[in-house]
Amino acid sequence: MPTTNRQWILTHRPTGLITPEVLQLTDSPLTAISDGQAIAKIKYLSIDPTMRVWMADVPQYMPPVPLGEVMRCLGLAEIIESRHPGFKKGDKISGFTGMQDYVVLSANDKYPAQKLPSIPFLSDTNFLNLLGINGLTAYFGLLDVAKPQAGETLVVSAAAGATGSIVGQLGKIHGCRVVGIAGTDEKCKWIKDDLGFDAAINYKHPEWKAQLAAATPKGVDINFENVGGEIMQAVLDRMNLHGRVVLCGLISGYTQEDPGLASFAQVLIKRLRVEGFIILDYASRFMDAGQKLGMWKMTGKLKSRETVVTGLEKAPEAINMLFRGENTGKLILEL
Amino acid sequence: MPTTNRQWILTHRPTGLITPEVLQLTDSPLTAISDGQAIAKIKYLSIDPTMRVWMADVPQYMPPVPLGEVMRCLGLAEIIESRHPGFKKGDKISGFTGMQDYVVLSANDKYPAQKLPSIPFLSDTNFLNLLGINGLTAYFGLLDVAKPQAGETLVVSAAAGATGSIVGQLGKIHGCRVVGIAGTDEKCKWIKDDLGFDAAINYKHPEWKAQLAAATPKGVDINFENVGGEIMQAVLDRMNLHGRVVLCGLISGYTQEDPGLASFAQVLIKRLRVEGFIILDYASRFMDAGQKLGMWKMTGKLKSRETVVTGLEKAPEAINMLFRGENTGKLILEL
Repeated sequence: MPTTNRQWILTHRPTGLITPEVLQLTDSPLTAISDGQAIAKIKYLSIDPTMRVWMADVPQYMPPVPLGEVMRCLGLAEIIESRHPGFKKGDKISGFTGMQDYVVLSANDKYPAQKLPSIPFLSDTNFLNLLGINGLTAYFGLLDVAKPQAGETLVVSAAAGATGSIVGQLGKIHGCRVVGIAGTDEKCKWIKDDLGFDAAINYKHPEWKAQLAAATPKGVDINFENVGGEIMQAVLDRMNLHGRVVLCGLISGYTQEDPGLASFAQVLIKRLRVEGFIILDYASRFMDAGQKLGMWKMTGKLKSRETVVTGLEKAPEAINMLFRGENTGKLILEL
Repeated sequence: MPTTNRQWILTHRPTGLITPEVLQLTDSPLTAISDGQAIAKIKYLSIDPTMRVWMADVPQYMPPVPLGEVMRCLGLAEIIESRHPGFKKGDKISGFTGMQDYVVLSANDKYPAQKLPSIPFLSDTNFLNLLGINGLTAYFGLLDVAKPQAGETLVVSAAAGATGSIVGQLGKIHGCRVVGIAGTDEKCKWIKDDLGFDAAINYKHPEWKAQLAAATPKGVDINFENVGGEIMQAVLDRMNLHGRVVLCGLISGYTQEDPGLASFAQVLIKRLRVEGFIILDYASRFMDAGQKLGMWKMTGKLKSRETVVTGLEKAPEAINMLFRGENTGKLILEL
């Protein structure tokens, strides 16, 4: 049994990107587990834009992480000792593990960790990506909220990110014309050539808005929005009457004091329906969705890609990579 | 038969309020009507914020009024001569009459005028207000889009305006707690004391956001939004999880080059549903709604009030009154 646990403690609230004073790597003693508890060694952490929101003392969908506590993070871990009724040594689990080397799980955790099945064609990290928060977000956000119809045009922002890349592929499975917006030519090439998007627009190109217009000759029926601000505004300007906007993320505003503003004028004029969407609301249906996503993965209809950073000590820098657009696909921290 | 028609011609696109060069009052000859036509003397014009939008060369829900043409306007008129199959002399009609003394109606008009029934307890101007664009907008926007449930909290902005004042009363009929936001103490007194709103907030009071919070102790389930910008933002900040926003108007932005911006962050965090709403989409159901509105009016459950300005020459100034908040209830121009 290990006796020391390295933990990233939230020590200051950030104002922009993560600076050294925001998180502090601390050695904490690991004491013996009690009845009803298990201890797991974390293998992978899921590095997600929403972590930056959790650090800020602003209204949000979960309580912000209190100062002085271990930074909240989704992860995948392996049980190394258990007095927990649901887990035995060697089981793999996923859940809110925190940014640390080891996590103690209790039978009465508010968000209980899930034991992962062993499925031959799925790697461990698939459970943090395609079958985890990103696949589920793409699945329910696109299929339940937007309800795409064959022949409709879907535009996805942050399209080479973990969620966006799955949204676009689900759009293709459902017969949509899919246009992705991303920030490098390499990302655009990946989503178009490897994932089968119909078009990909690099928003750093000076003519990108004209390119977006050319790529959406019949306008836009569905916007799956991950970015907000100017990018969202440009897509709203292309929306068709009675179009639907799934508001899944606003990453352009997460590191600014003033979140990206946009005009609601297009929403009014075009009678759009904009719906905010947080995956936690769909927890009761995760199993169903996971089976469908797994099937599409197995039959080659869904592909995923990971950007892997190694070492717990790299966690703060990994979070910053998200806001600099330095990941393609899912950003994973391997411990 | 009159031989001259005074017409307000749109001559320049406005950049803020309506200035003298924007509209020009012109005498035009009235020629004899042909088969299939009727001529009507306009009695009342409906002065609405959307007219400012129609003047601007921006994307919108109807084509902007072309320069050199009669300014578009809803109105009520009386047929003085007819070779039209649907109308006879003395009939009263409502529709897009334009800002002028007389209107020539044709059997093939794109938006045909409607012949008004004669109902004892309804005045002519009720057909431009409670049974016209404002009553119908309130009816479908609140009941169809927001679907209020008894016990929910409804906040209405521009609450002493023609539409807002009806929305609030419909909210009370359906068992909601209704809070109105308006711009003078007199307007607040009217909607609270005469119309039965539960609370009224004057947004020009320095403490108005705290007053809004106090008036919505259980948060806000429905926002019927007529204003946009800072006022909308303050209501979004009070919304409950899964609340609904009916986006009916954004008057705060209509006279500015930059329409009122707001953050979509609350929409995401609280999983709100924001729907743009334009009454034209509900044309096929106007008769049903009119009957219900008329019944509520007859039984004293719906009250209305008008601010009347007299004389066609006052039309541009009447439009400006809307943006200065100088009307209570419906603003009518009487010719």
